[in-house]
Amino acid sequence: MQRYFALDKKDDLFILNDDDLYHIKTVMRMKENDQIEVVFDKKLYICKLLHNYQVKLLKKITTDTFTNKQITLVIPLLKEAKMDLILQKSAELGVSEIILVELERSVVKLDQAKANKKLIRWQKILKEASEQSKRIDIPSITPIKKIADLKMDGLKIVCSTNEKENSLKKVLKNNCNYDKITILIGPEGGLTNKEENILVTNGFIKVTLGKLIMRVETVPLFVLSILSYESMVVK
Amino acid sequence: MQRYFALDKKDDLFILNDDDLYHIKTVMRMKENDQIEVVFDKKLYICKLLHNYQVKLLKKITTDTFTNKQITLVIPLLKEAKMDLILQKSAELGVSEIILVELERSVVKLDQAKANKKLIRWQKILKEASEQSKRIDIPSITPIKKIADLKMDGLKIVCSTNEKENSLKKVLKNNCNYDKITILIGPEGGLTNKEENILVTNGFIKVTLGKLIMRVETVPLFVLSILSYESMVVK
Repeated sequence: MQRYFALDKKDDLFILNDDDLYHIKTVMRMKENDQIEVVFDKKLYICKLLHNYQVKLLKKITTDTFTNKQITLVIPLLKEAKMDLILQKSAELGVSEIILVELERSVVKLDQAKANKKLIRWQKILKEASEQSKRIDIPSITPIKKIADLKMDGLKIVCSTNEKENSLKKVLKNNCNYDKITILIGPEGGLTNKEENILVTNGFIKVTLGKLIMRVETVPLFVLSILSYESMVVK
Repeated sequence: MQRYFALDKKDDLFILNDDDLYHIKTVMRMKENDQIEVVFDKKLYICKLLHNYQVKLLKKITTDTFTNKQITLVIPLLKEAKMDLILQKSAELGVSEIILVELERSVVKLDQAKANKKLIRWQKILKEASEQSKRIDIPSITPIKKIADLKMDGLKIVCSTNEKENSLKKVLKNNCNYDKITILIGPEGGLTNKEENILVTNGFIKVTLGKLIMRVETVPLFVLSILSYESMVVK
């Protein structure tokens, strides 16, 4: 069943955004009494369409969460196609929060005039990927922070090309009880020593991802796949 | 240093293909005496350019392999953009071999008239991704096999939406000594029961990938990330 995130709920009616209504009417060609899944406030409902395309609550569904871990991905701003891929795939792979950071060697700088437009585009990608992945939440995205301002709880990891010994695997094995994990990935040219030092001072652990040489947009997908895998419970 | 796979070697000169020569001359604007890395027959060499753009061997370099595991990915034919993404990322994530299989619920069928053209395109993507990832081999791609003809050695895994208990993690933990792993991923609509039965009869183990709901092109990236991670040695 098609899933949509609602903007609001008034009694037993949900308010969807215009894109979703267009999708229901014109793309999916749904009719009166057709059913959809609606998520509102991290709860899932089965709803039916009324004749005027109002969305009426039929029943509430109890859901599992995908993972009990809260995963924050911290990345520099990248070119549009790479950003789009990372956002879509990160939502599929269970990320909770994405923070964009300003890094010295970032090739792409945020154009303040276009920042709001970009944020709307990114939130749309995250919402659509979350619907497709049947999530009951949408990852948040915070446009630009300085690394010195990253005050995070839990396990904090920075992927470093300078680190040769301490592997992601070792750090995850030794810290399997954390339910909040933040992972920072640098730009194509890597982090500067100064940036790594600031992060280490703020409690980040440097790790190597092993011998693979990946494009910058592949690294978040690699890391999030592993975090999801490590949170799988083996029966 | 830029890396290229050579077509051939004659004494101490390497033969590159026309695309690579174009890249060297026109994209990278390299000149006489500039150095490049050349891979031939799974060996890595440092070479210099002669005045006529001949590629002369300077020295042989000893390389580590990324992983001692031989990983075969078996997937149905998918739409072009999805195939391109999977091939590029699979090469980055260390795949050895890709086999395309004919599956009942595949949406895309291989047009035999275009098969050769497609194969050339796929091989080009794999070669370029292997160069960028500093591999010393290029993953092979086998166009279309029937699943009954998949005669593989080693650990054989099929990702199944019907399997609820036996997780990928459990199977990898219980079979960590295999150095050859084949993993089969079905189409959007999943494998049919008949297909799963043929695979199980041929020694494939059914696994669940957990609770994430991923687009079909994300699944190979997820699985290959995990296989690479599991082959990391923890010091």
